[in-house]
Amino acid sequence: MSVKINLNADIGEGHGAYSIGNDAAIMKIVGSVNVACGFHGGDAGVMRDVVLAAKENNVTVGAHPGFNDLWGFGRRRIDMDPNDLEYMVAYQIGALVGIASYAGIKVSHVKAHGALNNMAATNAEYAMAIGRAIKTVDSSMIYLALSGSEMVKAGHALGLPTSPEAFIDRQYDDDGNLATRKQPENVIKDPEMAAARAVQMVREKTIISRTGKPMPTEFDSLCVHGDEPTAIAVAEASRAALEQAGVEIVTLPEAFAK
Amino acid sequence: MSVKINLNADIGEGHGAYSIGNDAAIMKIVGSVNVACGFHGGDAGVMRDVVLAAKENNVTVGAHPGFNDLWGFGRRRIDMDPNDLEYMVAYQIGALVGIASYAGIKVSHVKAHGALNNMAATNAEYAMAIGRAIKTVDSSMIYLALSGSEMVKAGHALGLPTSPEAFIDRQYDDDGNLATRKQPENVIKDPEMAAARAVQMVREKTIISRTGKPMPTEFDSLCVHGDEPTAIAVAEASRAALEQAGVEIVTLPEAFAK
Amino acid sequence: MSVKINLNADIGEGHGAYSIGNDAAIMKIVGSVNVACGFHGGDAGVMRDVVLAAKENNVTVGAHPGFNDLWGFGRRRIDMDPNDLEYMVAYQIGALVGIASYAGIKVSHVKAHGALNNMAATNAEYAMAIGRAIKTVDSSMIYLALSGSEMVKAGHALGLPTSPEAFIDRQYDDDGNLATRKQPENVIKDPEMAAARAVQMVREKTIISRTGKPMPTEFDSLCVHGDEPTAIAVAEASRAALEQAGVEIVTLPEAFAK
Amino acid sequence: MSVKINLNADIGEGHGAYSIGNDAAIMKIVGSVNVACGFHGGDAGVMRDVVLAAKENNVTVGAHPGFNDLWGFGRRRIDMDPNDLEYMVAYQIGALVGIASYAGIKVSHVKAHGALNNMAATNAEYAMAIGRAIKTVDSSMIYLALSGSEMVKAGHALGLPTSPEAFIDRQYDDDGNLATRKQPENVIKDPEMAAARAVQMVREKTIISRTGKPMPTEFDSLCVHGDEPTAIAVAEASRAALEQAGVEIVTLPEAFAK
Repeated sequence: MSVKINLNADIGEGHGAYSIGNDAAIMKIVGSVNVACGFHGGDAGVMRDVVLAAKENNVTVGAHPGFNDLWGFGRRRIDMDPNDLEYMVAYQIGALVGIASYAGIKVSHVKAHGALNNMAATNAEYAMAIGRAIKTVDSSMIYLALSGSEMVKAGHALGLPTSPEAFIDRQYDDDGNLATRKQPENVIKDPEMAAARAVQMVREKTIISRTGKPMPTEFDSLCVHGDEPTAIAVAEASRAALEQAGVEIVTLPEAFAK
Repeated sequence: MSVKINLNADIGEGHGAYSIGNDAAIMKIVGSVNVACGFHGGDAGVMRDVVLAAKENNVTVGAHPGFNDLWGFGRRRIDMDPNDLEYMVAYQIGALVGIASYAGIKVSHVKAHGALNNMAATNAEYAMAIGRAIKTVDSSMIYLALSGSEMVKAGHALGLPTSPEAFIDRQYDDDGNLATRKQPENVIKDPEMAAARAVQMVREKTIISRTGKPMPTEFDSLCVHGDEPTAIAVAEASRAALEQAGVEIVTLPEAFAK
Repeated sequence: MSVKINLNADIGEGHGAYSIGNDAAIMKIVGSVNVACGFHGGDAGVMRDVVLAAKENNVTVGAHPGFNDLWGFGRRRIDMDPNDLEYMVAYQIGALVGIASYAGIKVSHVKAHGALNNMAATNAEYAMAIGRAIKTVDSSMIYLALSGSEMVKAGHALGLPTSPEAFIDRQYDDDGNLATRKQPENVIKDPEMAAARAVQMVREKTIISRTGKPMPTEFDSLCVHGDEPTAIAVAEASRAALEQAGVEIVTLPEAFAK
Repeated sequence: MSVKINLNADIGEGHGAYSIGNDAAIMKIVGSVNVACGFHGGDAGVMRDVVLAAKENNVTVGAHPGFNDLWGFGRRRIDMDPNDLEYMVAYQIGALVGIASYAGIKVSHVKAHGALNNMAATNAEYAMAIGRAIKTVDSSMIYLALSGSEMVKAGHALGLPTSPEAFIDRQYDDDGNLATRKQPENVIKDPEMAAARAVQMVREKTIISRTGKPMPTEFDSLCVHGDEPTAIAVAEASRAALEQAGVEIVTLPEAFAK
């Protein structure tokens, strides 16, 4: 197997005196990071630190826009006018582009956060609003979107470079959607299980749902997390197993271009 | 007299259901607008409306970054670490650049808002922090800065295009600083007085302080306001008087390049 | 007809430099006001001004808690954990009780704002969460709740004094819910029509749906609005017509106790 | 020596997904806690958890109002109108009183947070504004105030129960003010040094400045911290040493009444 795949992770979600997740560790494992843009987490100073670290680690950065809900960490569903949503996303992308100037690096992609990502997975209006924001601000940015979701369709409809992603550390329902994290067993915390799963997913281009159903799936990127105690071990084990299986971990633009 | 001068005004300071000022009227009078970037006022939707209207009116847009204080409308002095301040400004500039994509227009300048502008007028660290943010995000943007202030010095020290501005509708102290708006008589509300003052300022390149002291002053731009009941009349009368005196009202880049 | 009825209106929804609605005018018309508590609108200073004015006008004040969404003015539906929602409401009630000390007056009731009110009308968990917050902070406060809604049921289930309210200036669907304000014709802007409707509602204890269906309805209070250009005229005409019909406009506690 | 003294600590400064400090540990050490009220930190849910835990631990709770600056964690000086400041403090006190209903406990005191506390220590207008807020909301609450500060004067001038406090883990300048925490050596991190200092302070009713100057000082309470890695050890050692020296650690109302 000679395959290139991207690993991505959310990052930079601290805010002022608050820190969350393990940004330094996750940066060493993935090929691309999704940077919180100050609405659900993050702030201008955190963003600057992240883009400098990303450059140092040869990791590409994407905008990780979320709802304007720091208290809820962007995990609460909010019914917004799709136009307001679009401009809100454009604003956050622009803010990161501004901050990325500190590292002299390009913002390579956009991935929605939390409840926004979950809603846009099935809500075509939201999915298109995010896509239009990307297209307007910089149509060369990759729309990083849950495989099989409305976001993938929106990305294609708008002619955007669109990369489907799959999740190593989360169970899937039989309809291809992520199983809710409200049930703890849907978050995979065992590094060995996650690693085996990652290799299987890449090798077979197939996700196995939590009931055992195989679902053939195209993806350029696998998402890992850094915000749970077990997450770093899961991510490290997955990367190591993938590399041992001959998979090369690359940035998102490289995985997209492959 | 064949002179080119810019008129600038703050704009887009509404937020969600709240509106303030008279954006439509002020847009017809000035050559450039300073667009609130969501921290002290404004939001992504308001910003988009403003950049579209600016394009239609052949008016250039600048970022108008302020403190992160919607409740205080950016008028409360906040002691920030200059680095945090710098990144905060870069974030806001970037956000506007992102939104300006909706109109396909360039962000021509940056002008600090309210208490941030007042503090940076005399605080060299703040003035330099704003300047570094501009230089990092886009060093071709003009630093629009109170004439004689630390901001003008910072702009020059950083090699930025720097345009001093003067205020038509505000009295000055003898040291060249703006007299406090806490004393109502320091805000000029009489259109005729303001208009005469504008012509005198441009003709003589001199500001007359509130005690009558003439202070020779270089400036590319005159600031007017749109947020007080009398402001539109003051701005309109000033523009009319300037044009009648042979002064051409141009965009800030044109006034800078003259 | 010798009837006592309460008129209530939302109030105090400005924030810092932003003002909205016509608080002074509405205060002269109603018997009770619902005071924004700083989350969807309002701030500590506005709240203080309102409680002082309420005392002067012999109007009782209620807390008007909303979602933590100033940008959306509390009009966006947010999916919250009901426990978080409950404490959020208790916090806002407590804040108003604190500020009401400036006038030495009691907070007489609680009415949810905007999307929170709309959601709690049909979502029993939200309705109970609001009720539990009231019961915990001060079980003598009246739960002012849309007639026929889950909130009325929750108030009764919790043993709270519960006052159903009906809307003068809004059309109803045949199921007893408020017709959406997204369709402009569902907001009644004609003072005469509103006034006739108010008298009919009180006289017949019946709401006529927008299709003409009569729906017998108990209520202690009629809600009017102050935030649309026509709202004051509608409210004034309604009050005048009610008084001419022999209806006495009283505070909510008086209407509840009748 | 048979002395009663209070130990107090800030608590409940997490927000949503963010946690900070070690609330569970500090609650076991002190006699009273100062609860963040949602402006510089904390939120309604965190506040509820804290008041329930305080009741269980027989610890009294006070409001810990701060500037409306979550990003700056209330540590940035903000120039506010003293009236706005007063109502902002009253709002926060009221909010905590509302939430304290969940534990059925009284809010025993008020202590300003961070930059607000630092400013009010020397700014009489701020100190009086905080005092007026306390007096208006509940004049039986204790104004917990840095010994020798303007806040102590304001508390006395307003006839409020006023308790001076001293700091175990912070150095003092010779003028009696806290030495800036920007210089790390001004934060005492050695448990033994802090413990010895605590006993000396209580025994001699004297603070030794960082230059060695003895400053006789009255205080009812000693402040410890829970937000630095070494803070819990410092607080535990101080409490143990005080008890060994025969000092009884009591709630603030008990220490005030002694």
